[in-house]
Amino acid sequence: MTVELKGKERLDDLERNGLKIIQDPGRFCFGMDAVLLSGFAAAPEGGRVLDLGTGTGIIPILMSAKTKAKELIGLEIQQESADMAERSVKLNDLCDRVKIVHGDIKEAGQIFDAASFDVVTSNPPYMIGGHGLQNPDAPKAIARHEIMCDLRDVVAAAARLLKSGGKFYMVHRPFRLAEIMVVMHEMGLEPKRMQLVYPFIDKEPSMVLIEGARGGKSRITVERPLIIYEAPGRYTREIYDIYGY
Amino acid sequence: MTVELKGKERLDDLERNGLKIIQDPGRFCFGMDAVLLSGFAAAPEGGRVLDLGTGTGIIPILMSAKTKAKELIGLEIQQESADMAERSVKLNDLCDRVKIVHGDIKEAGQIFDAASFDVVTSNPPYMIGGHGLQNPDAPKAIARHEIMCDLRDVVAAAARLLKSGGKFYMVHRPFRLAEIMVVMHEMGLEPKRMQLVYPFIDKEPSMVLIEGARGGKSRITVERPLIIYEAPGRYTREIYDIYGY
Repeated sequence: MTVELKGKERLDDLERNGLKIIQDPGRFCFGMDAVLLSGFAAAPEGGRVLDLGTGTGIIPILMSAKTKAKELIGLEIQQESADMAERSVKLNDLCDRVKIVHGDIKEAGQIFDAASFDVVTSNPPYMIGGHGLQNPDAPKAIARHEIMCDLRDVVAAAARLLKSGGKFYMVHRPFRLAEIMVVMHEMGLEPKRMQLVYPFIDKEPSMVLIEGARGGKSRITVERPLIIYEAPGRYTREIYDIYGY
Repeated sequence: MTVELKGKERLDDLERNGLKIIQDPGRFCFGMDAVLLSGFAAAPEGGRVLDLGTGTGIIPILMSAKTKAKELIGLEIQQESADMAERSVKLNDLCDRVKIVHGDIKEAGQIFDAASFDVVTSNPPYMIGGHGLQNPDAPKAIARHEIMCDLRDVVAAAARLLKSGGKFYMVHRPFRLAEIMVVMHEMGLEPKRMQLVYPFIDKEPSMVLIEGARGGKSRITVERPLIIYEAPGRYTREIYDIYGY
């Protein structure tokens, strides 16, 4: 399969099932967040999965390898990112299972049918607002700051599009944890499982992985800590396992 | 100071400032939960502190040694526990700073003035409801199950009695975490800091320590993990530090 690279785009190897992805260092490149989310998430065989704010398409592409989901859709508002993700899907010969849709999370309820997905994933912008940013319309700013959508928009879209009992998986920053739980509860996506990701065993966590269920009682499983480094520059066994080495 | 021990009561040494406490093994004895909460909590110099459901009085007694609070009040619904706590206060010669009040958390808003405390602490019953219990009126059942009060009662009392900006400190079980955050937010006690307590580094957490502030924005600091054991039967340095050894 040949693939067209535009401008400063590069082709990165995902080290899993021969998968590759197109990225542009001038735009937002996927991080460990997306990889850990795809390790934390699950999807039923034959299921329908939606990724909100898919960027390069990293999450549906990784989940195509990790799950037996029938259909994985990535929704992305930035035209260039959606185009890049689309070419990565073709490059990996995944067109029969993975689809990229160019559109706005705030309009996801019009783009897709209500209660039509088994799973919704999201690695949304973490930072509150975009005030004071030099270039609030720059691709990286849009991926990192709540400029085009905020936490409430993402959770509302997931709540509307999930079937009853369907699962929502999100990675976010721990400083937003209380707000995440409050908003999920308000929208009817009850937090059911979470895992904190600590860079080192004696440091504050840098990420939180959270699973919610559409409907369901308020009772959450907090997983054992996920530690990234066992020594500076050396990943723990668990991180290598998630990366698939 | 002489002290009267009743029935099967025993006198335990708290290994801190010569403090001692009266406990009855037939009733609820304090656990590591109360000690970790008193390590996690803080109180301003000259401040007024209320402990909701104080049991043996362990939390105000420990906090009398750890803080320069002027007044520490323990509210307890069980007459025998309140009586035992009262005698522990006398035994430790703390009557000028620590007071035990026999009363119901659900009536705390009538017992104390609104917005009159700088700090409220609580190690409340963890288990939902008391259905199916053999002896729902037994002292241990009342201390462990939400029979006489539930999470909402505890948080509502704290919210009413704290000054604006006052701090709420609670220890609870992680499976209630989502509900805790939702209820605190609804009552205007914003979760501001939390720490998960893991028995071992590779196990699920067994406790959560949480700090809320009356009013304030939704932004939480998640602390590094607190690990109890470095090997079976051997506490970590941090636990020894909290216990004051």
